[in-house]
Amino acid sequence: MSAVRAGQVVRERFESAALKDNAAGDPAVRTVPIYLPPSYAEQPARRFPVCYVLSGFTGRGTMLLNDAPWSPPLDRRMDLLIARGGGEMILVLPDCLTRYGGSQYLDSTATGRYEEHLVGELVPWVDRRYRTQAERDHRAIAGKSSGGYGALIQGMRHPDVFGAVASHSGDLYFDYCYRADVPKLCSALQRAGGLKPWLEAFEVALQKKHDDLTVLNMIAMAACYSPNPGAPLGIDLPCDLESGAFRDDVWRRWLAWDPLQVLETRADALRSMRLVYLDCGIRDEWHLHHGARFFSRRLHQLGIDHEHQEFDDGHRDVGYRYDVSLPKIAAALGA
Amino acid sequence: MSAVRAGQVVRERFESAALKDNAAGDPAVRTVPIYLPPSYAEQPARRFPVCYVLSGFTGRGTMLLNDAPWSPPLDRRMDLLIARGGGEMILVLPDCLTRYGGSQYLDSTATGRYEEHLVGELVPWVDRRYRTQAERDHRAIAGKSSGGYGALIQGMRHPDVFGAVASHSGDLYFDYCYRADVPKLCSALQRAGGLKPWLEAFEVALQKKHDDLTVLNMIAMAACYSPNPGAPLGIDLPCDLESGAFRDDVWRRWLAWDPLQVLETRADALRSMRLVYLDCGIRDEWHLHHGARFFSRRLHQLGIDHEHQEFDDGHRDVGYRYDVSLPKIAAALGA
Amino acid sequence: MSAVRAGQVVRERFESAALKDNAAGDPAVRTVPIYLPPSYAEQPARRFPVCYVLSGFTGRGTMLLNDAPWSPPLDRRMDLLIARGGGEMILVLPDCLTRYGGSQYLDSTATGRYEEHLVGELVPWVDRRYRTQAERDHRAIAGKSSGGYGALIQGMRHPDVFGAVASHSGDLYFDYCYRADVPKLCSALQRAGGLKPWLEAFEVALQKKHDDLTVLNMIAMAACYSPNPGAPLGIDLPCDLESGAFRDDVWRRWLAWDPLQVLETRADALRSMRLVYLDCGIRDEWHLHHGARFFSRRLHQLGIDHEHQEFDDGHRDVGYRYDVSLPKIAAALGA
Amino acid sequence: MSAVRAGQVVRERFESAALKDNAAGDPAVRTVPIYLPPSYAEQPARRFPVCYVLSGFTGRGTMLLNDAPWSPPLDRRMDLLIARGGGEMILVLPDCLTRYGGSQYLDSTATGRYEEHLVGELVPWVDRRYRTQAERDHRAIAGKSSGGYGALIQGMRHPDVFGAVASHSGDLYFDYCYRADVPKLCSALQRAGGLKPWLEAFEVALQKKHDDLTVLNMIAMAACYSPNPGAPLGIDLPCDLESGAFRDDVWRRWLAWDPLQVLETRADALRSMRLVYLDCGIRDEWHLHHGARFFSRRLHQLGIDHEHQEFDDGHRDVGYRYDVSLPKIAAALGA
Repeated sequence: MSAVRAGQVVRERFESAALKDNAAGDPAVRTVPIYLPPSYAEQPARRFPVCYVLSGFTGRGTMLLNDAPWSPPLDRRMDLLIARGGGEMILVLPDCLTRYGGSQYLDSTATGRYEEHLVGELVPWVDRRYRTQAERDHRAIAGKSSGGYGALIQGMRHPDVFGAVASHSGDLYFDYCYRADVPKLCSALQRAGGLKPWLEAFEVALQKKHDDLTVLNMIAMAACYSPNPGAPLGIDLPCDLESGAFRDDVWRRWLAWDPLQVLETRADALRSMRLVYLDCGIRDEWHLHHGARFFSRRLHQLGIDHEHQEFDDGHRDVGYRYDVSLPKIAAALGA
Repeated sequence: MSAVRAGQVVRERFESAALKDNAAGDPAVRTVPIYLPPSYAEQPARRFPVCYVLSGFTGRGTMLLNDAPWSPPLDRRMDLLIARGGGEMILVLPDCLTRYGGSQYLDSTATGRYEEHLVGELVPWVDRRYRTQAERDHRAIAGKSSGGYGALIQGMRHPDVFGAVASHSGDLYFDYCYRADVPKLCSALQRAGGLKPWLEAFEVALQKKHDDLTVLNMIAMAACYSPNPGAPLGIDLPCDLESGAFRDDVWRRWLAWDPLQVLETRADALRSMRLVYLDCGIRDEWHLHHGARFFSRRLHQLGIDHEHQEFDDGHRDVGYRYDVSLPKIAAALGA
Repeated sequence: MSAVRAGQVVRERFESAALKDNAAGDPAVRTVPIYLPPSYAEQPARRFPVCYVLSGFTGRGTMLLNDAPWSPPLDRRMDLLIARGGGEMILVLPDCLTRYGGSQYLDSTATGRYEEHLVGELVPWVDRRYRTQAERDHRAIAGKSSGGYGALIQGMRHPDVFGAVASHSGDLYFDYCYRADVPKLCSALQRAGGLKPWLEAFEVALQKKHDDLTVLNMIAMAACYSPNPGAPLGIDLPCDLESGAFRDDVWRRWLAWDPLQVLETRADALRSMRLVYLDCGIRDEWHLHHGARFFSRRLHQLGIDHEHQEFDDGHRDVGYRYDVSLPKIAAALGA
Repeated sequence: MSAVRAGQVVRERFESAALKDNAAGDPAVRTVPIYLPPSYAEQPARRFPVCYVLSGFTGRGTMLLNDAPWSPPLDRRMDLLIARGGGEMILVLPDCLTRYGGSQYLDSTATGRYEEHLVGELVPWVDRRYRTQAERDHRAIAGKSSGGYGALIQGMRHPDVFGAVASHSGDLYFDYCYRADVPKLCSALQRAGGLKPWLEAFEVALQKKHDDLTVLNMIAMAACYSPNPGAPLGIDLPCDLESGAFRDDVWRRWLAWDPLQVLETRADALRSMRLVYLDCGIRDEWHLHHGARFFSRRLHQLGIDHEHQEFDDGHRDVGYRYDVSLPKIAAALGA
């Protein structure tokens, strides 16, 4: 282990204009860890490609660096990959966490302007502050779960900014991954007496239960996909809390954000990528392997080069997949 | 306990013409227990109202008489209710079980003609064979879960035959109760290599796992709601096994059998009932309490008298609810 | 299926002197189903061997005849085994259920005289009433779980009465199978305010939860293994409810009833058997496979012929094992 | 939030002589985070009391600083407590993790000399390197779960070193907290073909399952409480893998390490403490609330001042309890 050259992590404090006074009341100042590879300090003139790594639901960049007994933090993984011959990249680990557990890396009147924060603020700031190769062909975006979603979506929306995309178990095919939880959302909020009382009770609870996180996830998705400034907390829910009924009108607004639908108008973005990588466990608890297969099949139909892998596991504890994707990304970016 | 007068159970062997050579290969000869109340033998000229009690998924009439440590079998429940002053009725406990775990009490080319068996065969046969009050105003239909579904549907389809309906936790609002299991069905059948291999593996397994029963339930619903003689096993599934995609066309065929949709064209049937009773636990694992509320709300809108009760529990172990419904049914039938 | 000759089940009503005014307040009159094999009626002079089949915890004989979708009731199993060439036996299905969920088929001042009921009352009564081969070499005892325990114990205690023993997943090695639940018992009773309030709350609950049955099981075992007329409900518990401490003195009384200890003084009983059969699933949730292995190893050391089988499953849904044991029993009894 | 003065965390790299060439092959160099309170930098002459905070099973000091969405890391908790008027302390967060998931903070020939590392190495090193109040009356030890065990044990063994002790849900009353898992340990290792193959399979598994961690925990406890240089991996297990039998001789060696037994010879150590605090959730999944009550009762009998609190929750997500204990510790140390 001692032979592995170590990169350096700088924990930047970033004051976001985009997130100032955001609707959810979340802080505008965020800690953004930046991983600088071993050669960054040693070769002061050299420029490096950059990969933005997006956290999953209830996560933020700093948590990718958490210590754990059997799974190395992302900086350590990168050190080891480089030691094994992988290309050297800068990693940027944004914090787009919200009161609701996540932003899906989108702009929303109910949460804040997280797409703008990520693409409009962080990218140019990183390029100014660090020795990056500041072109889209040397800039990637990757992530897991909601972070994988963010990577796919932002890659499709900003091919001028990102030249490679990797999505691990990303949110896809909303009919399979979210819809089953609508009745649970509805029952829980009805029992609590509404969205606001549910949220307040959740926030003061010392322990957050598994079922509560299922409900919070659905609230977060509604905040991201179907915001409505006129609704309670600015969020239209996919069910009517009074009657309990499924709301097709709201659901259609969610579907417009399903990467499978976005792909139909943004295929050229992915066609232009140096790498499109997506994977999923075939026992994914949210059935995301189906979505990954559809997406891959559609890419094939569209004649878009990509890599689609499957693993014999589920949605959790898949940090090891970065060992698969990061070397590919580095290679694609010419690192 | 010894003071309670006991009715008598006759286990009839019924050879069904309707079920002869049924597509699923299930027996045409069925055991149909008939409960005769205490006065039946004592008063040889008296005629009695009749209640058909339908079993839930994987059940048949004989199972309603199973012995259990804390929950009396249906005949004993009826004895006790009568001892407490409830009216005396004949109970008929049909067997509409299929290879797939159930028939939903419908005619289907994939399973058999269970509606015909129930309404066209059993009812007249019981009326010929026993001293019944052989008019719809003295004939009820009741059940739990899939049996509650069967009671509601057959009540709506045959108001000439049934004059009272009781549904305990009946299948309702398919969007909430079934749809979440489509991806599970799809994954399981894909892993097994198709519907037939899955079913064969299930049938030889010594122990049936909880997840397997979820899959079987979905197969059964497909067999009942979307049969197709041209498809494997005569069943159109709500997902495409090749692509994994949800099949909207099949789903719409399911929805046509949702009691909420059936109600729109059969409201008069329920309006004519002497009793419409429905209930559900507010923690129902299949979210059926939402469906029961919608149904009740729609009945209110349509000006249809009914009783809607909620209990603070889930979907299982709710045999005690017959203690609530059976006396109401007996009263409604003039017992 | 129609070719299978069917035996007959007589549901006897047995008024027990041994159980009269038993301490737990359970009924002295019990329903005891008797299975008579197909030839019983056809050959009116022929006598048949008898097998007593003991139910598991919360069970009684009638429940072995319950209808179920994929597991035939015991009488049907026996018909099928005979059709395949198995010997014909009478099966007696005792009811030794108590308020606490079971009696372990023992005499106890806290429950009642169930050993006396079984061995002293039922056996001679069956022999008087039916055409049995009324010698120990033609009489077996078998069962599953607590019934397997009962079979082993009563076989060891009454080799004059029983000449063959079969135990499926029987309670053995109490250190592994019961001891883990002592702290759960203790916590639950403390929270309820004692044994009596816990039991009263349990009895009125409409649904019995899995955790409640764990507690009830431990109460039952205490009632059977460590009764004490001076204690609340006549039961010494293996923990002190005031301090929460494990009670070694009570535990030692339990261990005296562990078949592994009983064997040390009753080896000759098993040596005299025409069949000693025991089995277990190697994933038994109560770790009973360890106990079965110890018992088998000790039998080997003692030079006692027996059969020990293992199955790759757990404690539940193992009715299929009667298909293994009953033909062996019939053969051993000369049927 | 901005008004809260922040302490500083120094992540020390400590090269341990005690852990050099340890039997488990774990690194001798450890990262030890040291929290310095806000005034440490501002008041360069001032000395501060110190609290050693021990991690639970599978944890190490750095993990107490992990970022999480709803539970602040320990340094942030301390900042907030100080902002609310709590005394300022240095916190030392040792790393005593082993291949087996933990060391229980004991010396063992199977793991290494962790007690020596903690008490003999770290304490004097911290006192040399930082401005501590280097007397036992200004030094505390605290922890959760296995860390709570370590705090209690090391407090009792080294009253010359520590003057205050706090144990959150600490391992206590081994009969209730560990013994139930002996058969699970036994079955798992037998299936794997022994201790070594099990461990090797565990270590390469990408995902560690809940059941695996139960087994690993038992292996770790055996490595700590019943090491034996002559046994495989230097560990005597509490069961015989060949026969499956519980090993009383090994178990007695474990019990000698139960704080309840240690207390009998070390009562004076606790009597001398400025604070003895222990707590537990009354729904602790390992039944540790019983052990905490016994310990508290025994302390009462011995006339030893202490504080015993109970919370209406379980074993997990109890970081909030540091908000209860740390201010008490600070006050007891005169901070």
